[in-house]
Amino acid sequence: MFLGRVVGEVWATRKADDLAGKRLLVVQALDERREPGAPKVTPVVCADPLGAAYGQRVIVAFGKAARVACGGDGDYAFEAAIVAIVDDLDAPLAPPEWNEPSLNDGGADARRERG
Amino acid sequence: MFLGRVVGEVWATRKADDLAGKRLLVVQALDERREPGAPKVTPVVCADPLGAAYGQRVIVAFGKAARVACGGDGDYAFEAAIVAIVDDLDAPLAPPEWNEPSLNDGGADARRERG
Amino acid sequence: MFLGRVVGEVWATRKADDLAGKRLLVVQALDERREPGAPKVTPVVCADPLGAAYGQRVIVAFGKAARVACGGDGDYAFEAAIVAIVDDLDAPLAPPEWNEPSLNDGGADARRERG
Amino acid sequence: MFLGRVVGEVWATRKADDLAGKRLLVVQALDERREPGAPKVTPVVCADPLGAAYGQRVIVAFGKAARVACGGDGDYAFEAAIVAIVDDLDAPLAPPEWNEPSLNDGGADARRERG
Amino acid sequence: MFLGRVVGEVWATRKADDLAGKRLLVVQALDERREPGAPKVTPVVCADPLGAAYGQRVIVAFGKAARVACGGDGDYAFEAAIVAIVDDLDAPLAPPEWNEPSLNDGGADARRERG
Repeated sequence: MFLGRVVGEVWATRKADDLAGKRLLVVQALDERREPGAPKVTPVVCADPLGAAYGQRVIVAFGKAARVACGGDGDYAFEAAIVAIVDDLDAPLAPPEWNEPSLNDGGADARRERG
Repeated sequence: MFLGRVVGEVWATRKADDLAGKRLLVVQALDERREPGAPKVTPVVCADPLGAAYGQRVIVAFGKAARVACGGDGDYAFEAAIVAIVDDLDAPLAPPEWNEPSLNDGGADARRERG
Repeated sequence: MFLGRVVGEVWATRKADDLAGKRLLVVQALDERREPGAPKVTPVVCADPLGAAYGQRVIVAFGKAARVACGGDGDYAFEAAIVAIVDDLDAPLAPPEWNEPSLNDGGADARRERG
Repeated sequence: MFLGRVVGEVWATRKADDLAGKRLLVVQALDERREPGAPKVTPVVCADPLGAAYGQRVIVAFGKAARVACGGDGDYAFEAAIVAIVDDLDAPLAPPEWNEPSLNDGGADARRERG
Repeated sequence: MFLGRVVGEVWATRKADDLAGKRLLVVQALDERREPGAPKVTPVVCADPLGAAYGQRVIVAFGKAARVACGGDGDYAFEAAIVAIVDDLDAPLAPPEWNEPSLNDGGADARRERG
């Protein structure tokens, strides 16, 4: 599993049948090697059974775990899903933006829901 | 799953039996760490059950999910497949080329089907 | 499996049912390519059936192995778990911080439980 | 699956029983991030059920797909195999060496079987 | 599978039951992107059913393949194992240290068992 942030959503008409009705989010991994201010979007696409909002921190799981989170290890045509929406994170050496509960895109419009 | 773009096709006569009749596409992951203008091709090869066109944005899944998208988790000798052709993407912090519905190779011949 | 260090913990209220009651730790891989002094946190999130402490070195396994370590290969919505807490490591060419049994964050407050 | 080139072969006497009689090749992924002229060998090792030659371009699959390509998803102690030998590749933006049907190691002895 | 070298061993008292009695080695992937002389240790940890020695070149497999190499695809809490000890390697473009049968740590104490 990895810790990431919801940075986008993607829509598709032509897709595998099992993806019908699934919300597909783009999640960016939190990663200390990124430069501050750099455009922070990576193309991990995952199913979202939990209703995560743009900018929220989430935990993403792969493979069987992702399918289980969406209702069982059936024949699903996806292998990544959000399995948790993060309430709190305690990682003392992490970069400051990891501790922002919602997306801080480098400036003025950063929301801070937590002191 | 990852978000990518179809950048090529590959043909093979000698191959595992299960690949017979399967269209094999080369898909490049969208990745913000690439330099603008750099040759943007990475060698992810995947089966294409959906008929994606050169330059289109697609979602690629791996493992069981890839086989399911091609008709069930049978004994297939591949583990990557296109599971969706992207209609629309909303990722505000992504690099501009992510929002091109078809391949923009840096200049004049870029098609823009969407304003 | 990889060798890492516990660098944080994460909490979530909204999550897949199978994660209820599971302790979720953030583990940083030991990696010789990091610069000394750099913030050393990467977002691998794993279940912890062994009770690892902050700063300890652990071995993390993925997939079926992770689920087995947590009680069997049932339908669990996670695919990473701590499978061992390291007592000792003999890797002569490894960077010095690998041999610290607990987290050395670059200075004064480093605990050294082992000579 | 990924697109690569056969750059070596490896032999082992002490090995898992299931590897007996299996030809083990070293395959280098085609990757546009490499510098021209750099030594281009990476240590992906895979079983070869198709008889690929040194320098040829191949498609490598992992996991169940690799085992299927070698005769079924039995209890095999390997998880990578060549599943296709490339005849032709159409990837307009790829670096030139991708289009060489056999290994071009930067100079005089490059064979060019295709115009 | 990947080609690597045994660079260490790790011991743990608190661990998943299935790891009891398993020798756990640290294996560094051979990788042409490393600088000569750099500390060459990466934290891949794997079970060793073959008795590999420090410095030897080995092939490491993941997942089901790793479990098969250790006696079957049972409920094992690991997913990486040494499946072969390399006798010989023919990779003409590989860096010289790949061809050392045992560890060459950059100088005087390098053992060379093979001319």
